[in-house]
Amino acid sequence: MSAAAATKGLAGVSAGETKIASVLQDKLIYRGYEIHDLAENATFEEVAHVLLVGHKPSEKELRFFCDELIANRALAPQVIDYIKSMQPALASGSAVPMDVMRTCVSLLGNLDADSQDNSPEANLRKSKRLLAKMPTIIGHMQNVIDGKEIVAPDTGGDAKLSHAGNLLYLMTGAKPSDKFTHVMDVSLTLYAEHDFNASTFTSRIIAATLSDMHGAITGGIAALKGPLHGGANEAAMEMLKLIKTSVDAGEGSIDDWMHKAFEDKRKLMGFGHRVYKNGDHRASILHALGREVAETERTDFIPWFDLGERVQQIMADEKGIFPNVDFPCGLTYFTMGIPVPQYTPIFVASRTSGWCAHIMEQHENNRLIRPLADYTGHPLRAWND
Amino acid sequence: MSAAAATKGLAGVSAGETKIASVLQDKLIYRGYEIHDLAENATFEEVAHVLLVGHKPSEKELRFFCDELIANRALAPQVIDYIKSMQPALASGSAVPMDVMRTCVSLLGNLDADSQDNSPEANLRKSKRLLAKMPTIIGHMQNVIDGKEIVAPDTGGDAKLSHAGNLLYLMTGAKPSDKFTHVMDVSLTLYAEHDFNASTFTSRIIAATLSDMHGAITGGIAALKGPLHGGANEAAMEMLKLIKTSVDAGEGSIDDWMHKAFEDKRKLMGFGHRVYKNGDHRASILHALGREVAETERTDFIPWFDLGERVQQIMADEKGIFPNVDFPCGLTYFTMGIPVPQYTPIFVASRTSGWCAHIMEQHENNRLIRPLADYTGHPLRAWND
Repeated sequence: MSAAAATKGLAGVSAGETKIASVLQDKLIYRGYEIHDLAENATFEEVAHVLLVGHKPSEKELRFFCDELIANRALAPQVIDYIKSMQPALASGSAVPMDVMRTCVSLLGNLDADSQDNSPEANLRKSKRLLAKMPTIIGHMQNVIDGKEIVAPDTGGDAKLSHAGNLLYLMTGAKPSDKFTHVMDVSLTLYAEHDFNASTFTSRIIAATLSDMHGAITGGIAALKGPLHGGANEAAMEMLKLIKTSVDAGEGSIDDWMHKAFEDKRKLMGFGHRVYKNGDHRASILHALGREVAETERTDFIPWFDLGERVQQIMADEKGIFPNVDFPCGLTYFTMGIPVPQYTPIFVASRTSGWCAHIMEQHENNRLIRPLADYTGHPLRAWND
Repeated sequence: MSAAAATKGLAGVSAGETKIASVLQDKLIYRGYEIHDLAENATFEEVAHVLLVGHKPSEKELRFFCDELIANRALAPQVIDYIKSMQPALASGSAVPMDVMRTCVSLLGNLDADSQDNSPEANLRKSKRLLAKMPTIIGHMQNVIDGKEIVAPDTGGDAKLSHAGNLLYLMTGAKPSDKFTHVMDVSLTLYAEHDFNASTFTSRIIAATLSDMHGAITGGIAALKGPLHGGANEAAMEMLKLIKTSVDAGEGSIDDWMHKAFEDKRKLMGFGHRVYKNGDHRASILHALGREVAETERTDFIPWFDLGERVQQIMADEKGIFPNVDFPCGLTYFTMGIPVPQYTPIFVASRTSGWCAHIMEQHENNRLIRPLADYTGHPLRAWND
């Protein structure tokens, strides 16, 4: 029952307006700034300020914004206890880090004094708190998985680590190199925002019922987990591992593996995009940085980039399909030694900035998001027939 | 950037096909069965079977289905401990029952051995487990709010209470009357399913990334909370309380209150519907049952129904807007003595059946749900300008 015809997956259908980002074939922009420009010239904190507050911060605004993030990094004891209690679930696989992160955010909402307040001021406060805490959640989860003591976040008066640096620090307890911090920072900038992608659209639908920000972010995390969305960075890396294992075992070449995958109509992760038809603007930026890390600090990983490049070449030549940002992201994080199940949580530690911006935009000019459906089920029948 | 023009809130736009329900001006049907027919002739368990399994159960299928629900009612100790730990948050208002329910479901996912398995078989198992546990979550929350001992769910070989009866029992520890159980059962049937409403659409978007069922239900709960969606049953009752307080204080008549609300352009909860323009099929069914409860078992509450009817009359006469199901639901649950903050969680205890059916339908014939957006933000500008 609909005015417009059903479009499966809302492909090609606009679901509304946004001032936050523009995803076009020829460029990706965040509030007017083009993604290559941001990747080269802005830090993730500056990008997050642009997304959340709406403009490029002055030096003073940036210092204040960074200080607020730093001051909000620590988790409440109840959240830390919950993460520790997930050790058996993470070990058994009944929970993966994305699931634990989802519960953490829902729990953070339960404990947040602003949780029932949807005013712009409260929403901005909650945005900063949420963004600040995501790397801490990731770090604590990894400490628990590794059976190590929880590493406290870098906070307080003399805190020096950026969002990216702190994220890397929390997972291992070791201060990361400048190169690693820079590459992580750029990857966070690339992941920060992408208009009405599935998780952001989820967050907006939740916000549009006039539900609260923590609920909307919890839903966003649930959506981002899927391998057809943020989960692709993990899935792409797992695929490359499978290919390498097969090649190393002498079962055939990379080309053989790919041709078999084509024959089996296997879904190859990290390729193609609903919006981009000629490639993802973000992919080449991250690929170049990841290869640079391999060539300068992790030469053992150069063969992984060679493998990835061959896979990309085959996809481009034979299918005309290009990698999305998740493909080089998987390779880059792998080269940096980050455990695969943390790749999508790291995506969360960035995309929270875009999600929160969209939730605030939705609340400020709201209309319930409620489409129609076309019924194709059983015709009318009586219960007692 | 879109083929179709932006439609705010996707109003009038079909987002796909479903075999589960049809929401039309002239009737509401679940898999072919019309809502009045179901309310009169089927139990909630039969309706849930129709939604989840796809057909009306035989006597044997129904017995097996009910037994499975009963066997799955209890919560893991970790979930009970979490609910108990929410006592201060529920008292302070940083968490409302819908928020605690959201965390409970996310936590149930963390502990479910099937959580990473999206197969139809695993999804059906998880659907039954989730549905069975929702009344227990509600009951335990209410026990904690009331500062009482946790009431264990009615389970095991001689369990006699239905989903509706058990739900009422868990909140107080007292076996409910047949009348109350029947009215609760019908309200659950009316709430079970409504095609692509905001929470169901949220669940489908999450499922469409190939994320898991617990994540999709967690997102559904977050969406249902909002007062423009399921939260309307609580908001409608709170509005009626405000009107009564004002009238009792001699500040004017019901009509005066309403006219002032119209002047102030106040949003009146429990009225109007995105799809239904001439009234909600479910509203009159529940209104009649609620009034019957008041007239037979709770005569003190008759004035509340009189008040509600006058409010409805004014809305119909002066605005041409009719109540949706949430308006009589608020009144009915209030008459039955249920605390207001549990109305939307009770909605969850029903709608979980519809959500799970939609998640399974989405997983079985999937396409990523990813619309476009129209950019209305700042034109291209350089970072270092």
